[in-house]
Amino acid sequence: MLVHLAKSSRKCIHKSVVARFATGPADVVSESTKAPESSSKSKLLHSFKDLSDEVVAEHVRDGTVSQYKLERELKKAVLAGQEPDCRRAVRVRRLWLESELNLPDSHITDDDRRQRGIGPLSTAEAESSRGLPYADFDFNNFYRQVLGTNCENVIGYIPIPVGFVGPLSISGKEHYVPLATTEGALVASTNRGCRAITESGGATSTVFRDGMTRAPVFCLPSAERAANIATWVAQEDNLSKLQAAFSSTTRFGKLKSIKASVAGRNLFLRFNCQTGDAMGMNMISKGVMECVGVMEQEFPEMVMLAVSGNVCTDKKPSAMNWIEGRGKSVVAEATLSGQVIVDVLKCTVQSLVDLNVAKNLVGSSMAGSIGGNNAHAANMVTAVFLATGQDPAQNVESSNCMTLMEAVNDGQDLHVSVTMPSIEVGTVGGGTGLSAQRACLEMMGLAGASGGEPGDNARDLARVTAGVVLAGEISLMSALASNHLVSAHMKLNR
Amino acid sequence: MLVHLAKSSRKCIHKSVVARFATGPADVVSESTKAPESSSKSKLLHSFKDLSDEVVAEHVRDGTVSQYKLERELKKAVLAGQEPDCRRAVRVRRLWLESELNLPDSHITDDDRRQRGIGPLSTAEAESSRGLPYADFDFNNFYRQVLGTNCENVIGYIPIPVGFVGPLSISGKEHYVPLATTEGALVASTNRGCRAITESGGATSTVFRDGMTRAPVFCLPSAERAANIATWVAQEDNLSKLQAAFSSTTRFGKLKSIKASVAGRNLFLRFNCQTGDAMGMNMISKGVMECVGVMEQEFPEMVMLAVSGNVCTDKKPSAMNWIEGRGKSVVAEATLSGQVIVDVLKCTVQSLVDLNVAKNLVGSSMAGSIGGNNAHAANMVTAVFLATGQDPAQNVESSNCMTLMEAVNDGQDLHVSVTMPSIEVGTVGGGTGLSAQRACLEMMGLAGASGGEPGDNARDLARVTAGVVLAGEISLMSALASNHLVSAHMKLNR
Amino acid sequence: MLVHLAKSSRKCIHKSVVARFATGPADVVSESTKAPESSSKSKLLHSFKDLSDEVVAEHVRDGTVSQYKLERELKKAVLAGQEPDCRRAVRVRRLWLESELNLPDSHITDDDRRQRGIGPLSTAEAESSRGLPYADFDFNNFYRQVLGTNCENVIGYIPIPVGFVGPLSISGKEHYVPLATTEGALVASTNRGCRAITESGGATSTVFRDGMTRAPVFCLPSAERAANIATWVAQEDNLSKLQAAFSSTTRFGKLKSIKASVAGRNLFLRFNCQTGDAMGMNMISKGVMECVGVMEQEFPEMVMLAVSGNVCTDKKPSAMNWIEGRGKSVVAEATLSGQVIVDVLKCTVQSLVDLNVAKNLVGSSMAGSIGGNNAHAANMVTAVFLATGQDPAQNVESSNCMTLMEAVNDGQDLHVSVTMPSIEVGTVGGGTGLSAQRACLEMMGLAGASGGEPGDNARDLARVTAGVVLAGEISLMSALASNHLVSAHMKLNR
Amino acid sequence: MLVHLAKSSRKCIHKSVVARFATGPADVVSESTKAPESSSKSKLLHSFKDLSDEVVAEHVRDGTVSQYKLERELKKAVLAGQEPDCRRAVRVRRLWLESELNLPDSHITDDDRRQRGIGPLSTAEAESSRGLPYADFDFNNFYRQVLGTNCENVIGYIPIPVGFVGPLSISGKEHYVPLATTEGALVASTNRGCRAITESGGATSTVFRDGMTRAPVFCLPSAERAANIATWVAQEDNLSKLQAAFSSTTRFGKLKSIKASVAGRNLFLRFNCQTGDAMGMNMISKGVMECVGVMEQEFPEMVMLAVSGNVCTDKKPSAMNWIEGRGKSVVAEATLSGQVIVDVLKCTVQSLVDLNVAKNLVGSSMAGSIGGNNAHAANMVTAVFLATGQDPAQNVESSNCMTLMEAVNDGQDLHVSVTMPSIEVGTVGGGTGLSAQRACLEMMGLAGASGGEPGDNARDLARVTAGVVLAGEISLMSALASNHLVSAHMKLNR
Repeated sequence: MLVHLAKSSRKCIHKSVVARFATGPADVVSESTKAPESSSKSKLLHSFKDLSDEVVAEHVRDGTVSQYKLERELKKAVLAGQEPDCRRAVRVRRLWLESELNLPDSHITDDDRRQRGIGPLSTAEAESSRGLPYADFDFNNFYRQVLGTNCENVIGYIPIPVGFVGPLSISGKEHYVPLATTEGALVASTNRGCRAITESGGATSTVFRDGMTRAPVFCLPSAERAANIATWVAQEDNLSKLQAAFSSTTRFGKLKSIKASVAGRNLFLRFNCQTGDAMGMNMISKGVMECVGVMEQEFPEMVMLAVSGNVCTDKKPSAMNWIEGRGKSVVAEATLSGQVIVDVLKCTVQSLVDLNVAKNLVGSSMAGSIGGNNAHAANMVTAVFLATGQDPAQNVESSNCMTLMEAVNDGQDLHVSVTMPSIEVGTVGGGTGLSAQRACLEMMGLAGASGGEPGDNARDLARVTAGVVLAGEISLMSALASNHLVSAHMKLNR
Repeated sequence: MLVHLAKSSRKCIHKSVVARFATGPADVVSESTKAPESSSKSKLLHSFKDLSDEVVAEHVRDGTVSQYKLERELKKAVLAGQEPDCRRAVRVRRLWLESELNLPDSHITDDDRRQRGIGPLSTAEAESSRGLPYADFDFNNFYRQVLGTNCENVIGYIPIPVGFVGPLSISGKEHYVPLATTEGALVASTNRGCRAITESGGATSTVFRDGMTRAPVFCLPSAERAANIATWVAQEDNLSKLQAAFSSTTRFGKLKSIKASVAGRNLFLRFNCQTGDAMGMNMISKGVMECVGVMEQEFPEMVMLAVSGNVCTDKKPSAMNWIEGRGKSVVAEATLSGQVIVDVLKCTVQSLVDLNVAKNLVGSSMAGSIGGNNAHAANMVTAVFLATGQDPAQNVESSNCMTLMEAVNDGQDLHVSVTMPSIEVGTVGGGTGLSAQRACLEMMGLAGASGGEPGDNARDLARVTAGVVLAGEISLMSALASNHLVSAHMKLNR
Repeated sequence: MLVHLAKSSRKCIHKSVVARFATGPADVVSESTKAPESSSKSKLLHSFKDLSDEVVAEHVRDGTVSQYKLERELKKAVLAGQEPDCRRAVRVRRLWLESELNLPDSHITDDDRRQRGIGPLSTAEAESSRGLPYADFDFNNFYRQVLGTNCENVIGYIPIPVGFVGPLSISGKEHYVPLATTEGALVASTNRGCRAITESGGATSTVFRDGMTRAPVFCLPSAERAANIATWVAQEDNLSKLQAAFSSTTRFGKLKSIKASVAGRNLFLRFNCQTGDAMGMNMISKGVMECVGVMEQEFPEMVMLAVSGNVCTDKKPSAMNWIEGRGKSVVAEATLSGQVIVDVLKCTVQSLVDLNVAKNLVGSSMAGSIGGNNAHAANMVTAVFLATGQDPAQNVESSNCMTLMEAVNDGQDLHVSVTMPSIEVGTVGGGTGLSAQRACLEMMGLAGASGGEPGDNARDLARVTAGVVLAGEISLMSALASNHLVSAHMKLNR
Repeated sequence: MLVHLAKSSRKCIHKSVVARFATGPADVVSESTKAPESSSKSKLLHSFKDLSDEVVAEHVRDGTVSQYKLERELKKAVLAGQEPDCRRAVRVRRLWLESELNLPDSHITDDDRRQRGIGPLSTAEAESSRGLPYADFDFNNFYRQVLGTNCENVIGYIPIPVGFVGPLSISGKEHYVPLATTEGALVASTNRGCRAITESGGATSTVFRDGMTRAPVFCLPSAERAANIATWVAQEDNLSKLQAAFSSTTRFGKLKSIKASVAGRNLFLRFNCQTGDAMGMNMISKGVMECVGVMEQEFPEMVMLAVSGNVCTDKKPSAMNWIEGRGKSVVAEATLSGQVIVDVLKCTVQSLVDLNVAKNLVGSSMAGSIGGNNAHAANMVTAVFLATGQDPAQNVESSNCMTLMEAVNDGQDLHVSVTMPSIEVGTVGGGTGLSAQRACLEMMGLAGASGGEPGDNARDLARVTAGVVLAGEISLMSALASNHLVSAHMKLNR
């Protein structure tokens, strides 16, 4: 059951169905009108504003109205209305879905609650704990922002709590960074790492490569032909021709290079592009299609099988991204003073050096990991991604990270670094346009297109992300080295 | 700037700081009291209820009150108060952070808005678009739920829109599945796949392995000794001894097997356990520590370097999980009728078979991908994970997937499958206890501990996740095969 | 040109062909008889002993005699003869091939010789340097040993020089180990490593896992069915049934376990077996086929696509072998004294520790290597394999190796280890039966089946191989650390 | 025991040692002279020619003469002698080693012989079967060729049988290719593949990339500095500077590009060079050292840890070589007619297509293999490498291969290809200078430096190698598809 529905309003929908998937009290229209069975669809649309949500939901059920297009249908119908139609669409969709679900009564057993470590609910709490939030919220026209851009078939939203870490000193500037997560202790632990870094004089974080990639797959009549085109692409003047085609589709995107992979008569061309402050997948797909057009004229026998042939590689583990990079390639580092390691991190330089070899180098190699030479980079990456509107599915490769720790200054201090070859981030487009996510970017001073060099904001976001990963790695490794991870977890997740 | 602050309330906080990180109008206490400089901390605590948020924020700033412990401090101070302290703690923390940030004015340029594809904002919209939501929301005591369990240093939340797909017929039962995502077209596309599956008679989804893993790393005096213990662990009666130790720590967890990896004098013991309906990382860590205690008595020369040595492997790509499995190993499959492929998916059996070989097998192999033989499994996994309170950082390995497509019935129909060896999910613990996420689990009939066999709910969640991945793979592969992905994306992300 | 042919004997073969691929003077039969064109094949066979080689070669050319079956044909024909027919078959085959090749005159330019670093040849040397050896050699009836067992279409042999290293002290016993190689400096360098080990008190080498594997691939009607069989195989009593079937085919082989991998409706069953002193590929293939027979009766819908589905994994890089092992899993180690490191290896403990992290751990991880955390294990493995009659193509996985170096005893000494999970060796079967290879095994005291526990000889061979790898790793790493590899190479390959 | 020693000559060496490791009858010098205990070393040297081998061996034993330097010592001593000293050095070394070994009597049990499938030996055979060949062989001054170039501490040689396959039509030219192997059936099977290719009109084989690589590892004071140098190297004019330095060391080598990998403050620079007809490892090492000199002047804080940091990657599995190539990147292909597949290969187009997907794509992916999408490429690569004097340890990466099979011409015929990105071969240097190996290269028309473009011979050798792999893949896949591999092996290895 998504939202508790007042008993009184239930019956009018459907007798045999307990309509749990409905609206909260504020949304309940007490007077409902039964939809006239004979009314035509066009007539119906004009009368939506006069119909109760329950009746519209019935129209969805009987197929007169498409649930998928509810937002647009209701828009048409409320031309003169003052009610925001997107929100109503959500409400109606929930009513309809509730009746489809036909769920048994919710069983929040005492056992469940014990497992979750919380006491028994009061009746009021029990009621209100049921349901996906939606009605008491339409922050900045959330549903309208989302419509057609971020989600379809919307029935509500999940609130992910946002904490922050900082101050984290990176290259002389102090940062406060928002993390959206439900993993207890993550923010606290990462913050400890920030403190260790900042008290040791700060970190530096450097972008050493920048390029989003897309690799269509082609089929040629023969492998020899595929090999020939691989050679053609490698020639300076042919690349120039394709760069011109690419540039015709975008103001910010720039084709930098193309890497050809031959597999029999299959040819994969990995286009590498700079994409300004956007993460760039859409920008690059458009540009690549233009280039493909040029190539198909040059090589009429070339058949594109798909605009992505997995050599890109998007949202999959791959040595390709680890070796060639994707998005921003960043290295962040700090030299932690031995005193801070003892005082803040409760362990020693040597214990960290030894553990880093045993776990992040030897252990990851034993596990057959390519790109996973780290303790938990994915935790920090995911939390920053969720907070700042990045694509959390891209943490698969954005979390690629090698953490290194080395004793320096005659063993007194510790040099720590995280090398992350494929952080895929942007400050425009995708989820970054939503108000909450944008607010997080603003908190970091990185919202929207950068004022200076195109891409500066995105690169800075990558640099800060790597900095936060550095902090998280330092803290977890220290916790492990001082052997109290389990107890810490137990305590925090009691 | 997180939340717009009324100009009038600004000055009373700190003259030289534009306090942007503060409360909305409803929260503004117009009369503020300056904290007496000389007051002792204990005295101060008792008077929190009498102090304005701004003054408390000043106390945070001057170090009298710890921002990290704000929730607890305020709790102590408002014993008799009726105001929910967690929410106030968030509000105060924002006020304090705002003053720390010292941000330049927000620059929402017209250019940004064009890039995001939305028109210019009205002044009112511009105001309200600034800020992370928090104040108009405390759904089911959200902040109290989160406290000490899911997040620290909380300053608000990110709303992730939730859509749904379905009906998706799996093993004879129809499912509606919530997806939390900001990637436009994902829900719509996946839903098309559900339709193709359901119209073809449905999918089946089977769990063929179930076990969460944790692998501490030990150091021994010699490699020979490490090898001996590896042999010791493999013996039936020694395993029994450890199983007993493990069971003493948990009602639901069961130690099934231990896999030893020797690397010189390092020894990695990968404990494989069933963990009921919990994802199980905490449960297993506790049990493993108990086993380690037993082994340390048997082998006093054994030194545990860390409870996790990356052979687990958690939140990192690895062949280990791909080969050995982690969490639930699931295979989902459907036989799509040729007619449905033409009508719903707008392509052909042969085009899908060919593309699957070229992209998901050849392409992924060319990219050096282990576990990434799929089109975009991570998208569906992440969206289900966010909706149902799973750990989204675990999508790194939970998205491991091999998608296969084969012509059957004399080339008339298509057999499609996704094999996912390491889906890490639970229906109790972690983020599943939060109201919104729990509502999504309830919508699927899978909230909390299962009524039947322990772990049934978690296994079913894994089965449904694989089913949704199957749908998403079918739809995207079809879109690519019919060559209209780019235009579809362009249109949906206009 | 393979063997220089005396001018006088050339013309009688074929006028227009310079018959370079022929016999040396000792083999030339000066009187040749033209084969009667009309003679029937059967008549011909009886007269082979009366025919010159050149004439028989003409019969090969005109198709009367099969070159592939020359050994058998000649055997039939020389029942009463005293000449060894295998050797004659080789000679005739060369004569025939020479005429087919129709090569241009050899061009051994001065430039070539300079590149190879040797002075100009005398005329006599030039003559004799042309040709693959064969005629002055039939050591222990080499060609007869080879026939039907090791090679077909034989035209001679390649002599690989054999050096030795030692004494190498392993687990208290001194070993001298033959290495067959053409890579200059390898033997000398490895020998230096042996000296460092032996002077430091010796190495220990331990086998911690032993099992050859073979994994047929099956196709089932559905993935669910494949998953079910994967579960069936995991059950104790079903394994017993298959173990019995396996044992019926072999005296030494023992089926230990079966690991199932599901990929859609494909099922891979990796049979893991002990194979006595044989490397075991043939033994296991036979046993597996018997098991497959049993399973096909149990599951009539099961179709075996091939007896090997690459999950084995034979002669290919794979995480499977790295993680699960194949053949013998061995770890060898030594603690080198700091003094020996300075005196013999010309470097320091710390320089070796640092280099090992940078190269064998960080570098290999950066290269996306699974199983390649070593400096040059393949060199030593290949040299031992060639000397002792192993399959050199199996060095692909037998060379999997992680080399670790750690400062011990307060940084005074160095603990070094090599962990090699998949050394595939045998002391019976394959190339081990040839006289020269067997002599090398005898030199190590490891020829043939072991007198004690079946498999002891093979396991000892694996242990010694790892010990030699340890020596080679130590020496090369030291050379690199002391920065003189290039000059050493230059000097040795002058 | 390496070579049987006549009883009579034994006693004169050492009473308590059974001197098995000695010379054959032909080499036995019956009159031995006891070395005078008091003779000085310099005096001794001049009298070597007058001393028996046994006595010299005693001098090795007592340390007067170095066994390692025997060749040079004997050379000095026989200035006036006509006996080839290298051969004598081998003989003396064997005598000495024999006494060191102190082996038990050889146990060639009946059981061993049965396992090897050969009948009981006659006494004469038993005698002669003991021993590594050496004495009846000094083909083209073999030992002198080897000395200082290919092997040290030489005690004999291993004869590897050489068969041939052909005619194999590649790009319109017929090839006969020598294979050195002890794996029964390999030559016969590969030859069947050649026949299928040639009868279908032949293969084409194309080199699409050519460059040997070497990647030294450096340490910098900071990761930022390492990143800066990575950027520096990528600039055109800096590359030019390094190219000039590289070219100063070699006539044939050309530096083409440098790929930088940053890992914290470690920097790996992968130099990619064309190396003419040499495999090129030595050539490139020299050139790279020159470049390093230039860079160390530019960046004095740069410290080279080793000339190879494993990013090269030499003789180890790696995604780096798979993705970036090493040596020659080659693709070979053929379109087999359906009729030939039935007649010669005894299977069908569809069975091959299906098996290739199940085994070489799905199976290899399941095994976590990067670069191993083939059936047994390593077999053919190793056999060609041994025959032509390549480094067989480099088959680890030279065997990287993706085999693809696709139905074409409406399912009538089969397109087969092998893509091999990292074949490391040369026709000058290393083992190619030895007479037998050179003869094999001559048989292929590819010995020494190419007359045309530098590198043509080496590239052609790579092309032919890929062609032979294509043949071998076709044949084994067909055997598996027609389900008779096991029986074929059984029969051939009876």
